Amino acid sequence: MAMATSPHSLLLQNPNTQFLKNTKIPFTTIPMTSTRLTLNPNKAISVKCSATTTHIQDRPPAQPQSQDRVFNFAAGPANLPENVLLKAQSELYNWRGSGMSVMEMSHRGKEFLSIIQKAEADLRTLLNIPPEYSVLFLQGGATTLFAAIPLNLCKPDDKVDYVVTGSWGDKAFKEAQKYSQPKVIWSGKSEKYTKIPAFEELEQSPDAKYLHICANETIHGVEFKTYPNPKNGLLIADMSSNFCSKPVDVSKFGIIYAGAQKNVGPSGVTVVIIRKDLIGNAQEITPVMLDFKIHDENKSLYNTPPCYGIYMCGLVFEDLLEQGGLGEIEKKNKRKADLLYNAIDESKGFYRCPVEKSVRSLMNVPFTLEKPELEAEFVKEAAKEKMVQLKGHRSVGGMRASIYNAMPLAGVEKLVAFMKDFQAKHA
Amino acid sequence: MAMATSPHSLLLQNPNTQFLKNTKIPFTTIPMTSTRLTLNPNKAISVKCSATTTHIQDRPPAQPQSQDRVFNFAAGPANLPENVLLKAQSELYNWRGSGMSVMEMSHRGKEFLSIIQKAEADLRTLLNIPPEYSVLFLQGGATTLFAAIPLNLCKPDDKVDYVVTGSWGDKAFKEAQKYSQPKVIWSGKSEKYTKIPAFEELEQSPDAKYLHICANETIHGVEFKTYPNPKNGLLIADMSSNFCSKPVDVSKFGIIYAGAQKNVGPSGVTVVIIRKDLIGNAQEITPVMLDFKIHDENKSLYNTPPCYGIYMCGLVFEDLLEQGGLGEIEKKNKRKADLLYNAIDESKGFYRCPVEKSVRSLMNVPFTLEKPELEAEFVKEAAKEKMVQLKGHRSVGGMRASIYNAMPLAGVEKLVAFMKDFQAKHA
Repeated sequence: MAMATSPHSLLLQNPNTQFLKNTKIPFTTIPMTSTRLTLNPNKAISVKCSATTTHIQDRPPAQPQSQDRVFNFAAGPANLPENVLLKAQSELYNWRGSGMSVMEMSHRGKEFLSIIQKAEADLRTLLNIPPEYSVLFLQGGATTLFAAIPLNLCKPDDKVDYVVTGSWGDKAFKEAQKYSQPKVIWSGKSEKYTKIPAFEELEQSPDAKYLHICANETIHGVEFKTYPNPKNGLLIADMSSNFCSKPVDVSKFGIIYAGAQKNVGPSGVTVVIIRKDLIGNAQEITPVMLDFKIHDENKSLYNTPPCYGIYMCGLVFEDLLEQGGLGEIEKKNKRKADLLYNAIDESKGFYRCPVEKSVRSLMNVPFTLEKPELEAEFVKEAAKEKMVQLKGHRSVGGMRASIYNAMPLAGVEKLVAFMKDFQAKHA
Repeated sequence: MAMATSPHSLLLQNPNTQFLKNTKIPFTTIPMTSTRLTLNPNKAISVKCSATTTHIQDRPPAQPQSQDRVFNFAAGPANLPENVLLKAQSELYNWRGSGMSVMEMSHRGKEFLSIIQKAEADLRTLLNIPPEYSVLFLQGGATTLFAAIPLNLCKPDDKVDYVVTGSWGDKAFKEAQKYSQPKVIWSGKSEKYTKIPAFEELEQSPDAKYLHICANETIHGVEFKTYPNPKNGLLIADMSSNFCSKPVDVSKFGIIYAGAQKNVGPSGVTVVIIRKDLIGNAQEITPVMLDFKIHDENKSLYNTPPCYGIYMCGLVFEDLLEQGGLGEIEKKNKRKADLLYNAIDESKGFYRCPVEKSVRSLMNVPFTLEKPELEAEFVKEAAKEKMVQLKGHRSVGGMRASIYNAMPLAGVEKLVAFMKDFQAKHA
C-alpha cells in the first residue's frame, strides 16, 4: 500500500466490491494526476485516468441483490426478513460504533447486555408476557427442552400427559420417559397426524403435573387454533414452528418454548418463557445447563450464550414490532395461507392437502400431487424459478411449503401462479 | 423511489452507509442537473449539487473501518480475524449466489452440507486429526460437556480423576459428581491457581476411567505446555481457550473439546473431537442432546445445529490454513505473549504476573499493578486509546489481556507501549 502515500494516488472505494476485498487490498488504488469529469445524469459516471477506469453505475431503484434472492420455503432454518439481513450486514463488522462485531463482544460487556435486554423487552412487548414469567435465551433447540422440562418439573415418579399430534410431540414424549412417567393421552398417528383432538374428549391422568402439546407440527402441518385448559396440571407448549406468528395468551401456559430458526432468528437459540414459580425444583441428575434456575438467576448469562443468534432474534423482534405487532403479523400469515390452501382446494384434486381444514397450519403447508410421479418435476421446475426447498419431509413425502413470518406475500403469489401453470401443463 | 426514474436524478451509492439503509431507501438519491467536478489528488472529492453534498473521501491505506475498530482483549467471545469478518459481511445477505443467507439455509440442504463438511475437513487438516476420531459440532459450551463426558464414558460408580488448575477445571469436577465418582488428584487452589503440577507427582486412582484437565485456564492464565500420559484411563482435555492456538497431538487424547468463542468462531458452537470407540455407552439418563452416539450417527445434524456459528468457524479454519497452519500460528502467539510478559517482567515490579513462568498462558495474560489503586485508571485510560476489556475476571481482580489467535501483533505492541507510558507517568 505504499502507493497510497504518494500525492499522485487517489483511493476510491468501489461500493460493489468493498466486502470482497481482504485486508490486504481493501481499495482500488488509482495512480493519477489531475482529472476533470462531467456528471451526466443519464449516464454512468466514469473516472478516467491513466491506469484504469472506475464506474459508479446508475442503479435501478430496487435492492442491489434482491433480484438474486430466492423464495425459500424451507421448514427451518428459514428465510429472514430482508431488512433484518441488510441491517445485520451493515453492522457485522462494527456494531454501532462499538469498534467490534457483535460476534466479538464479551457477553458481560455493556454492549451485549444492551442487546439481550432489548431483545427480551421487545419480546415481552410482542407477546404481552406477564411479569411473573421469565424469558430465557438458551441453546440446544427444542430437543434439549424435551429433557429439560420433565427434569425441571417432575420427580421420576410423576405422571405427565402428552397429546401427540405429529413427530415432534412424539419425540418430546419419548424423551420424557427418561425422567418421568409420561402418558400419551391422544395420538393422531393412526390418521397420519392430520388432526387435532377435541379438547373435551381428552382424558387426563388424575394427578398429571402437566399436559404437553406441540402447538404446530412442522412436518405434518397441523396447528392448534385454540388451546386446551388442562384439568390437571400445567399447559406446556412447544411453539418452535409458530412462535410469534400470532398473538398468544401467555398466562394460559406454564412454559412456552421455541427454537428460533423458524420465525424469529437463526438456529442455535432456544427461547423459553416460564412461569417463575415453576423454577427451582430440578432433579439432582439435571445437567447444570438444563437447569432453568441457573439460567434464570444468571439472566441467561451463566455461561457464554449464543450471542449473535440472540442479537439476530432481537432484530427480528424489532421488525415485528415495526410491522405493528403480532395481530398484524397474523393477518399477513392468514392471507398467505389462505391463498395457498385455496389454490390447493380449487385444483380439483390435482393438488391435495391431507390435513383437516380446521387445523391446517398457517406456517407449514404439506401437499401431494394426484400424480405422484410428477412430484420430482414439480420441485425441479419450481427451483428453476427460484422457489426452493419445496420437497416434503422424508417421512411424509409430497411437497411442503413453509411460509413463516418472513415469507413475503409475493413468494406465495409466485408459488400459486406456478402451481396453476404446472397444473395446466400436466392436467 | 419515484425520483430514481427522473432523468434529473442520479443514484450514488454511499459506500459508508449502504448497509445502514433498509429495503425502502437503499441509495442516496440526489436530484441534480449537470455538474462538473475536478479531482485533486490531495483533497477529498466533493460532488456538489442543489440538494446535498456527497463526499468521496480520500482515505488512509488501512481498512475502511479499521480506524474505528478497537483492540479487544476480552476473554471470549473475543476478536475475530478482520478478513473473516469482512468475508462474512460480504456473504451475509446472499451466500455465494445461493440466493440466501447462511442463516436461512436448511441444515439438510446441499449448501449447508458443503459448509459443515468443509469446516470439518479443514479442522482435520489443521489438527491432523486421525481417522479414528469423530469431529462433532455441538451446542451448550464446555459447560454442557462437563456433564456429557461422564454421562457418555462412565457408569455412576466409575472412578475418574481431575487435575484442577483453575476455575474451569473445578467446575468440570463438580458437574462430574452427578454422574460418576470423580476425585481431584491435584489442585492449584492453595497457590491461587498459578501452577501446573509435575506429571510424575500425580497419583491417579487405580481404576480411573479418565484423567481430565483444562488445557488452558482462561481466568487464571495457566497453560499446560506438554500433556501427561495417564497411568490409568484416557486423557480428556477442555481446550476451550487454547484450541487451535498451536499444534496438538490428538492421538494422545480420548476427547478434546472446546467452546468456539475464543480462537475459532462466535459463541454457540462447541467442537468435540472424540475417539470413535468411546462412543455408544451413554448412561440411560443421558438427554438425547448430550449423547455423542446420536450426534456421531447423524454427523452433527440430529436436530438443527448452530449453522451460522459453524459457518463462521469454517471461515476461521480456512484463515488459519491460509496463514500456514498451527505451527505458524503458534509462532505468532509466542511472539505476542513474549512481548507482553517481557514488558511485565521488565517493569521492576510496577506490573506483576502471578503465574509461574514456565506455565504462563499464551492466550490469557493476567497481571496486577504494584499500586492497585491505579488499576481502574489503567483500564479507563486504555479504553480511551481503543484497547478494551482489560479488566481482570471478577474472581481474580487486576487486569487480564486475552491475546487469542485473532489479536494482531499491533494490538499487543500498542498495549505494551501504553503500559510503558502509564508506568512512566505513575512510577
